[in-house]
Amino acid sequence: MTQHTHKITVATCGKGLYDFTREVERWVGSCRITTGLVTIFIQHTSASLTIQENADPDVIADLNDFFGRIAPEDNRLYRHTVEGPDDMPAHIRTALTTTQLSIPVIGARMALGTWQGLYVFEHRAASHRRSVVLHLTGE
Amino acid sequence: MTQHTHKITVATCGKGLYDFTREVERWVGSCRITTGLVTIFIQHTSASLTIQENADPDVIADLNDFFGRIAPEDNRLYRHTVEGPDDMPAHIRTALTTTQLSIPVIGARMALGTWQGLYVFEHRAASHRRSVVLHLTGE
Amino acid sequence: MTQHTHKITVATCGKGLYDFTREVERWVGSCRITTGLVTIFIQHTSASLTIQENADPDVIADLNDFFGRIAPEDNRLYRHTVEGPDDMPAHIRTALTTTQLSIPVIGARMALGTWQGLYVFEHRAASHRRSVVLHLTGE
Repeated sequence: MTQHTHKITVATCGKGLYDFTREVERWVGSCRITTGLVTIFIQHTSASLTIQENADPDVIADLNDFFGRIAPEDNRLYRHTVEGPDDMPAHIRTALTTTQLSIPVIGARMALGTWQGLYVFEHRAASHRRSVVLHLTGE
Repeated sequence: MTQHTHKITVATCGKGLYDFTREVERWVGSCRITTGLVTIFIQHTSASLTIQENADPDVIADLNDFFGRIAPEDNRLYRHTVEGPDDMPAHIRTALTTTQLSIPVIGARMALGTWQGLYVFEHRAASHRRSVVLHLTGE
Repeated sequence: MTQHTHKITVATCGKGLYDFTREVERWVGSCRITTGLVTIFIQHTSASLTIQENADPDVIADLNDFFGRIAPEDNRLYRHTVEGPDDMPAHIRTALTTTQLSIPVIGARMALGTWQGLYVFEHRAASHRRSVVLHLTGE
């Protein structure tokens, strides 16, 4: 068993889901690990990770809308308003999704289902560069 | 350190939580790993995983009801309606729970708390066969 | 590659988030693993884990309030009421957050972002002692 680590940056421009499956796939492929486990960790509290359907882009838009409804930009609801009306909703959206995903690697590829894609879920309105740390162990 | 992988199928018949703790426990036991980490990954975006109380079945029913209220079947709320009124709510319910769980193995058993059970959370109305990939590393 | 396990207890006194980053950091440091993966697993279904901003305490208070609104203490909503009005909301809040986190270790430290802290999210009103199992693999 050996292990590898890597860091990638995902550029985002406003709230929504950004597919980065290929970047992870490419790195996993380059590590020459046949069987193992890859862990994906985002180093932020106002952007998160999710695995979602990669077929119909409407799913991604509906998801973003849902999180907008459940955690609205309304300063009357929050104490923490100094970083803008989208900041506290961003922390809530992050808590409701996840900061980390681990995926088995089989046959030198992530064992994703047919319709599964990896997304950075950006919760802030402005553009950001999001840091994602990758860890792969296996042989 | 060695590793093992396995795939199991969990049959579901409509929305709700399906306990599959024993299937995972049995496989972990068969691998003869005393100390390690087991990762459970579901290959779908309209069914998910959760760890919940395994004592009172009312908890499971209440959880399913809660997710029905928070992500209602109402086509006016969603763009993605072509796969039926339960499909977009299923993707939302998946995003709110999780696609992956990793659990330490100690004394050749998962280190679950007394009341913790592993559940596939089915979010579609029809019957399905859900694929779950298992990865175990340790010694 | 070697591995280590450990168990810590986090004392809580009512609903809210309890920072335990240092306890995990200290243990990871004591294991003399330079590169690896640490997994944190909470053995409960009415308390959970989250990674959140550790700068402004208002974020933590707002998060707790949000989960109070989304899963209110209202016995008319739930079948499972025998353990008190805060118990079923606690299970829902646990399902919406997470029971497990895995974080890459780089340079003998968890690869947390600048503003990320590890929290036990207590969802019950009374005081509790929460068990958290740690697993670290690497070299």
